Amino acid sequence: MALWDGRFETGAAAETWEFGASLPVDCELYQEDIAGSRAHAAMLAAQGIISEEDAAQIKTGLDSIEADIATGSFDFDIRDEDIHMAVEAELIRRVGEPGARLHTGRSRNDQVATDTRLGAKKLARALMEDVLELQRSLLSAAEQHPGVILPGCTHLQHAQPVLLSHHLLAYFWMLSRDFQRLNAAYDAANRSPLGSAALAGTGYPIDRRMTAYELGFADVIPNSLDAVSDRDFLLDLSYAGSVCAMHLSRLAEEIVLWSSPEFGYLTLSDAYATGSSIMPQKKNPDFAELVRGKTGRVYGNLMQLLVTMKGLPLAYNKDLQEDKEGMFDTARTLSMCLSVMSGMITTAQFNADAMRAACSKGYLAATDAADYLVRKGMAFRDAHAVVGRLVLLCEHRGCELSDLSLADLRGECELFADDIAGALDLDRVVAARTSEGGTAPTAVEHQMRLARTDIVMGEAVLAGK
Amino acid sequence: MALWDGRFETGAAAETWEFGASLPVDCELYQEDIAGSRAHAAMLAAQGIISEEDAAQIKTGLDSIEADIATGSFDFDIRDEDIHMAVEAELIRRVGEPGARLHTGRSRNDQVATDTRLGAKKLARALMEDVLELQRSLLSAAEQHPGVILPGCTHLQHAQPVLLSHHLLAYFWMLSRDFQRLNAAYDAANRSPLGSAALAGTGYPIDRRMTAYELGFADVIPNSLDAVSDRDFLLDLSYAGSVCAMHLSRLAEEIVLWSSPEFGYLTLSDAYATGSSIMPQKKNPDFAELVRGKTGRVYGNLMQLLVTMKGLPLAYNKDLQEDKEGMFDTARTLSMCLSVMSGMITTAQFNADAMRAACSKGYLAATDAADYLVRKGMAFRDAHAVVGRLVLLCEHRGCELSDLSLADLRGECELFADDIAGALDLDRVVAARTSEGGTAPTAVEHQMRLARTDIVMGEAVLAGK
Amino acid sequence: MALWDGRFETGAAAETWEFGASLPVDCELYQEDIAGSRAHAAMLAAQGIISEEDAAQIKTGLDSIEADIATGSFDFDIRDEDIHMAVEAELIRRVGEPGARLHTGRSRNDQVATDTRLGAKKLARALMEDVLELQRSLLSAAEQHPGVILPGCTHLQHAQPVLLSHHLLAYFWMLSRDFQRLNAAYDAANRSPLGSAALAGTGYPIDRRMTAYELGFADVIPNSLDAVSDRDFLLDLSYAGSVCAMHLSRLAEEIVLWSSPEFGYLTLSDAYATGSSIMPQKKNPDFAELVRGKTGRVYGNLMQLLVTMKGLPLAYNKDLQEDKEGMFDTARTLSMCLSVMSGMITTAQFNADAMRAACSKGYLAATDAADYLVRKGMAFRDAHAVVGRLVLLCEHRGCELSDLSLADLRGECELFADDIAGALDLDRVVAARTSEGGTAPTAVEHQMRLARTDIVMGEAVLAGK
Amino acid sequence: MALWDGRFETGAAAETWEFGASLPVDCELYQEDIAGSRAHAAMLAAQGIISEEDAAQIKTGLDSIEADIATGSFDFDIRDEDIHMAVEAELIRRVGEPGARLHTGRSRNDQVATDTRLGAKKLARALMEDVLELQRSLLSAAEQHPGVILPGCTHLQHAQPVLLSHHLLAYFWMLSRDFQRLNAAYDAANRSPLGSAALAGTGYPIDRRMTAYELGFADVIPNSLDAVSDRDFLLDLSYAGSVCAMHLSRLAEEIVLWSSPEFGYLTLSDAYATGSSIMPQKKNPDFAELVRGKTGRVYGNLMQLLVTMKGLPLAYNKDLQEDKEGMFDTARTLSMCLSVMSGMITTAQFNADAMRAACSKGYLAATDAADYLVRKGMAFRDAHAVVGRLVLLCEHRGCELSDLSLADLRGECELFADDIAGALDLDRVVAARTSEGGTAPTAVEHQMRLARTDIVMGEAVLAGK
Repeated sequence: MALWDGRFETGAAAETWEFGASLPVDCELYQEDIAGSRAHAAMLAAQGIISEEDAAQIKTGLDSIEADIATGSFDFDIRDEDIHMAVEAELIRRVGEPGARLHTGRSRNDQVATDTRLGAKKLARALMEDVLELQRSLLSAAEQHPGVILPGCTHLQHAQPVLLSHHLLAYFWMLSRDFQRLNAAYDAANRSPLGSAALAGTGYPIDRRMTAYELGFADVIPNSLDAVSDRDFLLDLSYAGSVCAMHLSRLAEEIVLWSSPEFGYLTLSDAYATGSSIMPQKKNPDFAELVRGKTGRVYGNLMQLLVTMKGLPLAYNKDLQEDKEGMFDTARTLSMCLSVMSGMITTAQFNADAMRAACSKGYLAATDAADYLVRKGMAFRDAHAVVGRLVLLCEHRGCELSDLSLADLRGECELFADDIAGALDLDRVVAARTSEGGTAPTAVEHQMRLARTDIVMGEAVLAGK
Repeated sequence: MALWDGRFETGAAAETWEFGASLPVDCELYQEDIAGSRAHAAMLAAQGIISEEDAAQIKTGLDSIEADIATGSFDFDIRDEDIHMAVEAELIRRVGEPGARLHTGRSRNDQVATDTRLGAKKLARALMEDVLELQRSLLSAAEQHPGVILPGCTHLQHAQPVLLSHHLLAYFWMLSRDFQRLNAAYDAANRSPLGSAALAGTGYPIDRRMTAYELGFADVIPNSLDAVSDRDFLLDLSYAGSVCAMHLSRLAEEIVLWSSPEFGYLTLSDAYATGSSIMPQKKNPDFAELVRGKTGRVYGNLMQLLVTMKGLPLAYNKDLQEDKEGMFDTARTLSMCLSVMSGMITTAQFNADAMRAACSKGYLAATDAADYLVRKGMAFRDAHAVVGRLVLLCEHRGCELSDLSLADLRGECELFADDIAGALDLDRVVAARTSEGGTAPTAVEHQMRLARTDIVMGEAVLAGK
Repeated sequence: MALWDGRFETGAAAETWEFGASLPVDCELYQEDIAGSRAHAAMLAAQGIISEEDAAQIKTGLDSIEADIATGSFDFDIRDEDIHMAVEAELIRRVGEPGARLHTGRSRNDQVATDTRLGAKKLARALMEDVLELQRSLLSAAEQHPGVILPGCTHLQHAQPVLLSHHLLAYFWMLSRDFQRLNAAYDAANRSPLGSAALAGTGYPIDRRMTAYELGFADVIPNSLDAVSDRDFLLDLSYAGSVCAMHLSRLAEEIVLWSSPEFGYLTLSDAYATGSSIMPQKKNPDFAELVRGKTGRVYGNLMQLLVTMKGLPLAYNKDLQEDKEGMFDTARTLSMCLSVMSGMITTAQFNADAMRAACSKGYLAATDAADYLVRKGMAFRDAHAVVGRLVLLCEHRGCELSDLSLADLRGECELFADDIAGALDLDRVVAARTSEGGTAPTAVEHQMRLARTDIVMGEAVLAGK
Repeated sequence: MALWDGRFETGAAAETWEFGASLPVDCELYQEDIAGSRAHAAMLAAQGIISEEDAAQIKTGLDSIEADIATGSFDFDIRDEDIHMAVEAELIRRVGEPGARLHTGRSRNDQVATDTRLGAKKLARALMEDVLELQRSLLSAAEQHPGVILPGCTHLQHAQPVLLSHHLLAYFWMLSRDFQRLNAAYDAANRSPLGSAALAGTGYPIDRRMTAYELGFADVIPNSLDAVSDRDFLLDLSYAGSVCAMHLSRLAEEIVLWSSPEFGYLTLSDAYATGSSIMPQKKNPDFAELVRGKTGRVYGNLMQLLVTMKGLPLAYNKDLQEDKEGMFDTARTLSMCLSVMSGMITTAQFNADAMRAACSKGYLAATDAADYLVRKGMAFRDAHAVVGRLVLLCEHRGCELSDLSLADLRGECELFADDIAGALDLDRVVAARTSEGGTAPTAVEHQMRLARTDIVMGEAVLAGK
């Protein structure tokens, strides 16, 4: 028998219990639900809506239920539909009439919104920790490989040489933005719907700011209809997770590429690789692939919620019950991905020699050859064309630019002189790119300082939550 | 210790066990996995690759493992990664060296593809049953309400009167197409990858057609690289499910609308409705809303797999491990939705009086008034304009077309005569639409015969699987 | 002949011109491209990299090209690939060698990122204006219908009466959040990538802060690899648009529902409705339906970009060229939807009588009947059950709660007394819900003050951009 | 003035013209629209609903309009909303009253469904041609490189050697499935809705089978409500396109990988590559990247339509107007991708030497070493472990398996003997995999015969359309 069935003549069809129940999902929010009830009861008593004795009995009952759930000694019954009904029904069983007064001036609609927002805040905060940890791992790896040079690519073609540190820091900044987006999702969740009741507010003299304060919300939501039907904060979390998953998929792709025999830039620790059931030699970057593959489910969760919310009239509709499973799945998935990625980066061996050897292929200094001519007075577009023809010459000969003689070079352009060799030296090419944000060691040093500050600021944000 | 770790010096990081393991998901495929191993072992023996005694011991071992899993007395260990390794490792523990011969000429790559295809076939077939059942419920409801007329809508505005039977049958045909799409997904899954080994086939003299036949596959896949990396059949299933979910969302939307006090066309059985924690009067179409809301997750699962597959090079990549959770979720979700929808339709009360009363609003006979003028010789476009002006007159007077006097009508057009009243009679208007597929009772009778045939054909298809 | 083809021996296949060219899309960014080149040239001169005379000639050439494009007298050639090449090639044609110096220390990669960010800022700002305008329309409509009461719904069932103003303001707050999200997207775009060159920075002594300042960026991006491959700001814009589209789809759904003959709460202006080609009486809420339907394309654009970005290695890849079409489509679509919605709300007639009449159905005061009993000392859960049984009695009699006699009421519970009638009076029921954010006129007055402040703050944000 | 505005007092708001009009999109269907009107008029005359003279004048008028549109001399006016109204209004202008009779027994709702189905059939058929062409290119490339061996990969790690032909044919079979899915989409579109009128059929004695036959439809749709609101056939087309795009993204990814200096397996023709604005040496696989990147928009189009269709009540709703833009975009995008991919494959140079050289890395023969031990009597799992340890030995020494001495081998297992060298020979390893669908030349020869048959069958299917 449900707590709401006064007007019903027949019970629910058996098949609808499993179909309609959210209990297997939302039982994960039991602490949030009980915290919300505790705050609500305390407020009801403070406002004189229920007696202090009733409030005390409710608190005692809730405490004992919470303890039982925590220890696994609480038997959930799917016919209770959801965590809210499960707790309230049990409370009435344990403490009697005071328990039946708990729901005064409250509805499941504002209750579920409150629980979900508390849960979203917790998950967002935990993901921010995980993101920060991966930022630390990337920064640490960048710091530990100061002079390593590899071919920077565009279109997966060798473009210009870059520092490995510089390359790793590019991901650092992606994650820094993820941190900001998760923080925005946290803030979006951080407003209390409690006291909006079913949809219209209530006539009881409740104090919404008291429960909001008690539960750690920064503010109350100003419209009760919006309060019970808004799930933007979950979309924000799901979206922040999707962009983060996308960033991780890019890093994962590079780990897979760099671990291939063709690249050989990186050797994964045995602890972060797996073998094959049939091929004895295999050492597979499984976990990087999984991180890449799980992008799909994180995107899928975002799409799920966007689709579910489309076209719903005000206020609460049962469709909204589909809001939590994706939230939990995205958070769990992403937390594991971030953690595994951090472990993978920390334990991987970067093969500096292989990276440097690769720099001898693909005419990496071609831009610098053009810049050399520009410094001697030629217009950039014309210099670009000269070097393009030299590259074509190399292609025909099967050699690199550095293999061309000065005569070869001057055959295309008289401006080439003896100093060209130095201008195309790998280390000098890298060291030259001193523009702000560039790959020269000095510029990357500056960037690292910014990165360290970013970490400190992230820690400060987390400390304030 | 894993079955593949000969070349590894250190074990896996603890956090990767949970992250990398598919066992919590693919243990649902244990019957398929064991059936595949049984067929493989029998074939190895038939081809003389292993001895008959080894095959017999393998079979005995597999049988006992299957029985233990079925009764819940099998302890899964997440460090076995997946159902394939869990079964094989246990087999070796139980029967020794013969068990170690089972994996001859086979890889996890073709094994997982085989299991997944067998699972997809089972799920597709079950969904076809569920779809057929809802088709039956809709046809039955259509048959039971022969003369009921309601306002047919476009843009949710009253357009022309239609038979309730006709309206319900529109959903019947949507489901008929879903049945076809699920059937296509079944056929897509129905080809055997077994014997493709890791990716390149094998040098053992295996007989792929023998295992295919044994496992009930219609054919073998002609390219081993494709065989281990193709998941199109899962996309087909997920897509078929998505369109079906979309159809159900449309039916659900109408149930929600029709249950509202404003429409009042339909009263849900108490067995398929729920109440409110705060509002004692509420009787909510929760399950229709959930069906509508769950469209999101089914779409999300499709998007997940499409995203995961994007840009993967040949052949097997670990990203593919993300293929099964969505398959199970889509099948389970849809099966419940179809079943609940069938129960809801079967037990609902259609309020013929409310439907007929609604027909008095919205000038439902306006098209017939125009057609009346066309039959008297006016061009349709001109007749449309005449009736449009009459509707405007009604709007100003706050009345319906049938409230206008003949003088009013002839004020706009001299062609109106006494016989106009009959032409606008609700039942005659419906009865007139005798074009094939139209809403006249005769036409709907014909349509019902087609629908009954469709059911019979669907049953025949299922019987052949 | 392309500006980059020095090393190519044969020209491009004809079919690739159309396939590879982004010109038909990115020509919309011609002002941004030219502004970026102007700033770059001025900086090159200020830093002594090119001469002041060259810079002056470049500026003159760019000005004349911009004027020609603005007046439509510029002939684009698809073989120029994109707006960047089209402008640069024409510049060289017009001013010769100085034009060939423009690309010094710059690459298409940072150039396209710069243009796109400038474009995203412009579009985000324009959408913020549109959102604010719809907020004003909603607030104005709320202000103009102060005492109108309609049935507040959950599950599309009558739940509790609410003020129309309260209902409209719920959408106001959704849009307020959309404004914030668009603002965040603006801020994400507001950092300069210019000077990152191809991917690694440059050796020319450029001043990135000078060009950033000149172009109105708030900061420079600290990593050149990230600068040329980051498209998060477009995802942010696309996401902000998706949530906004979702909100609009909800409002649109209600407009469609309320315009139906069954509801009749709202009559659209003829200026925002359309007719039917066959049914002369039809007045369809086409534009609300289109707003609802266009949710799909806005979601689709978000999914498109998320999919495109998945798994791309650093740095620039041609896949990124697919970034702009969705940005333009989302912005154009949403701008029209917001504007049409604003017009629709402003011109619609809200039918207060129909709304009030609907309040007599669905036992809207049931919660208040339970609250009445609570005030007399009963526990809420017990009061809920009592009223539930009274509703069942009404269902059997086909009447409403207000039709029950005091004897009927006391038959269920002795606490009912003469004052119950007043407690269930519609206006009093609404007026009672004075909790913060509730639907009582006093609470809604307070909410409107918050809304007016929100508008003022939004205007201040826009003024600062 | 619209053809439907009899009941409207004021005109449409100016902004709604652009917002509501589908003309810029559906004008592409002018031939289908006119063909539909021609067939409808001929049927109306054959059934005696209009006179033969009227039908003749209608036909003449339609012919002249079609000719004018074809030559670009037809002025479309956006206020005509869509192609249907544009043509009908012009027809009335040209031939007068007979034109006004054309819409007898027809509505825009069945008309737009008819046009869209005819368009979908045309696009599906064209894509089937394009798919077949790429199949031919792949088969031809496979035939032209008979003995080329490359490392077959799983997890992008070298797994076992495979024939290049075998690898290319894997994509052939993916495309073969795409052909089937497109064919199913064609069949789904191939049923006539014409004669369903607005939603309920019509009272005119029309002959739906006559117009269906005339327009080349295989059948008529049995329910008029379903006929005007079904867009499954567009979803089928969009889905078939999505899977095809996914397959192309996989092939594109491999082209990008293989073109990298690290792989070097493939050299694109200059005709299918582009350069860089700043880096003179670059030769980028732009078009492969674009094919990969465009996967996003094709997926996005599918998601768009699925979202748009969700939750729509019967019958026609204006949301459905959003059905065609994605259809055209998917077809155009995919057609270009298929064509460009075909050109790229046909003109690319496959570097057999680089592929063979790569086979010396990654212990490609490890499985064969284990199989060798199995043939000598060891159980496969034990043999796997032996070879795993040998690989570890190689890792420590920095050598390959073939570099180990017989003593080294026998140090791990006494079963190794002189014949091991032959067993690990690259060509013999490949030649050994003779299982059906395997990579041995003999097996691939068999597969090619199946592929040729598949082409012939595809051609036969197309010939029948």
